This record gives sequence, structure tokens and C-alpha cells, in this order.
Amino acid sequence: MSDLKLVIGNKNISSWSFRPWILLTQFEIPFEEISLKLFTPEYAAIIDKYSPSKKVPVLNDGNLRVWDSLSIAEYLAEKYADKQLWPQDKIARAMARSVTAEMHSGFTGLRSNLSMNFHGRKSDFSPPEDAKKDIDRIQSLWEECLSSYGGPFLFGKNFCIADAFYAPVVSRFITYGVKLSPKASEYVQTISNLPSYKSWGEGAKLEIA
Amino acid sequence: MSDLKLVIGNKNISSWSFRPWILLTQFEIPFEEISLKLFTPEYAAIIDKYSPSKKVPVLNDGNLRVWDSLSIAEYLAEKYADKQLWPQDKIARAMARSVTAEMHSGFTGLRSNLSMNFHGRKSDFSPPEDAKKDIDRIQSLWEECLSSYGGPFLFGKNFCIADAFYAPVVSRFITYGVKLSPKASEYVQTISNLPSYKSWGEGAKLEIA
Repeated sequence: MSDLKLVIGNKNISSWSFRPWILLTQFEIPFEEISLKLFTPEYAAIIDKYSPSKKVPVLNDGNLRVWDSLSIAEYLAEKYADKQLWPQDKIARAMARSVTAEMHSGFTGLRSNLSMNFHGRKSDFSPPEDAKKDIDRIQSLWEECLSSYGGPFLFGKNFCIADAFYAPVVSRFITYGVKLSPKASEYVQTISNLPSYKSWGEGAKLEIA
Repeated sequence: MSDLKLVIGNKNISSWSFRPWILLTQFEIPFEEISLKLFTPEYAAIIDKYSPSKKVPVLNDGNLRVWDSLSIAEYLAEKYADKQLWPQDKIARAMARSVTAEMHSGFTGLRSNLSMNFHGRKSDFSPPEDAKKDIDRIQSLWEECLSSYGGPFLFGKNFCIADAFYAPVVSRFITYGVKLSPKASEYVQTISNLPSYKSWGEGAKLEIA
């Protein structure tokens, strides 16, 4: 039994929860999953126990409460240093942190117009201008990383925190049928074929059944 | 002459630029400052040279371009490990990263209603509900850190990255005359009395003169 407890929201819609969940799962770090239904009285009644910001995701490690997806990722990268959650190379790591932070603080056009709906499928969706700009930027960012580091993941042969942060974006692109370049489409395939990605999807399916 | 170039926007309004600038200045890390005027044709013409995301702040270290305020902070924390930009204690560091990440990704009510205007002074400003909620949360977060670690900075005797991320919030609270608890007011005093804070303000004054 692990001391790590990850508190998450509904799997079909909680894109922020998906990041640390797929990170932990992909790196085979044992954790207990505590699932809360967002926007319910039960959530409001219990969240204080786990999360100082009242938000998910939050990681509890014994008495320590680490909140926010990026802070959780950095905490895990330190705690499991041997697993290399960030790229080992200094320059690749700086790049990986930059693309991760860009996702963490930005892309509001994408977030508000293509909200995560893991099992939803929209046909004929046409993104508004601000979302289109974000999609273009994400595509060029993926292409640059995949070219520079040789794929199949953003920073080479190994999955890293940056991939965990873009996994919900992969889901959004699939849901909204976003047309992508061959290279970016290949990356969508790589991520969506991971057993960890599929396993999250199975959990999401149970919740909306 | 340092190899570090920090590219920033207008000092009076660019809250994101203020974070790495006060961090570098406070830790006496030498850097060259490149100041761009936001929303001008000159900015659009030159920003690609420095910043893959086309945004400021961006740090250039030789050929390496590190963008986004949080990624810059982590890069500097690694590069100048002896200066301890994060708290040394593991638990304090996890907390510091959480409060920093919460600022980095959130508080949209504060951001949109109390935009940074370093030398502006609003009288009788009454924050709308979403901004009020953010102000309350920031105040309780500051109080918890100051109580747990004894002040005068959020994590004790030494300024750290978390303080750099809340320095623009200090400026917002002053500009909009936000009423705070005695403990939170004391923190506003501590930060706004720093020579680095005042020096940023002098730069902002020159720009709007």
C-alpha cells in the first residue's frame, strides 16, 4: 500500500486531474486513487480535507498536501529522481519545462472552446479564431519537439512530464476532430494508444454509463 | 557581462515579466535586460528572435531560449543551486511550488479585474465577486505561509521564487487599495520596501513619463 493518495475529479471532464494520473500510471508509481464528483455537495464537504486550494488534482503524501498539477509533477520528479520524469539532459529539460508551463498557464482559447469530454465526439466542429491560434501553436510546438528529439514522445524515446501535460490535449483533439499535420497526428496516435491513456478512458466510461 | 538575457514587457503593466526580473535582481544574478513595448509593430517584428511562444518573459542563456515565468524560475533554481531559489526543506519546497503554481495557473478573477498598473492608484475600488474570492484565497494562503514559516517572507527569512510570483500581486493590492488583514498588510510592506521592488517601479515610472 502506497502512502500516495491522488485526489481527482470526474475522468471524462477533469483535464487537470488527467495529467498527474497518467504521469503516475505511466511511471508505475503506486498510488491510491480518490475520485470526487465535481460540482456536488459531497465534493464541497470533503475537499478541504485533502486540498488547501479546494481544487483537484491534489496529491497527499502522508500529511503533506501537494496541490496543482505542475507542483505535483515537480514533487514526484524529485521524489522518484531515478525514474527521470523530466529529461536528463539540461537543455531538453529546460525545453520540456517551458512547453509544460506554456500549457499550464495558457491556451485559454483551447480550454474554453474545446473543453475535455473524453468520450464525446463532435462532428463538423469549427474552432473559433482564438482556439485555432492555440491549436496552431500546439501543433508547431509538438512538431518542433518531435523533430528535435526524434519522437515518438515529445522529448524522445521516453514519456515525460511534458507528455502527461499534453495527454488531455490529445483527448480534446480527438473529441473535436481537429485536423492535424501527419507528424502531429502520429503523436496523437502514440499517446492515445498507451495503456495508461486507455485505462483512464475506461474509468471515464464507467462514470458516464 | 552575463550570457543571460531577460526579455520583458512594459514595466508598468507586465506582471508576468516582473516575476523573473525581481527573482534575478533579488538574488543578484547578473543579466542583460531587453525591454520590448507590448502591442507594437516593433514587438511583433523582433519577438520571434527571442521567444518561441512569442511571449514575454523569456530568458536567453546563450543559444538556449527558456520561456514562461515558471520555467525560467525552475531553470535558474537549477543553474544557481547554491543560491537556494526554492526553500531547502523538502516539505517547504513542495508548499512553495504549490502556492507558486496556484498563482501561475489561476486567479483569473484577480487578473482580469485588477490588472497590474504599477503606478496607478484607484480610490473606492470595489472588487467583483470572483476577484474578491481570489483576494480572500491569496490572503489566507499568505497568512498560512507566514504563520508556518515565521516570515517576513512566505517561506521564512529568505526571499524565494514564491515571493517573486506574488510581487505583482502586492503591486495590484496597492494600486486598487485592497483592504487586507494586519499580517497580509505586513507582507505587502515587506515586499514593496525591497530595493528590487522599488527599482522595478523606477523603471516603470520612466516608461510612463
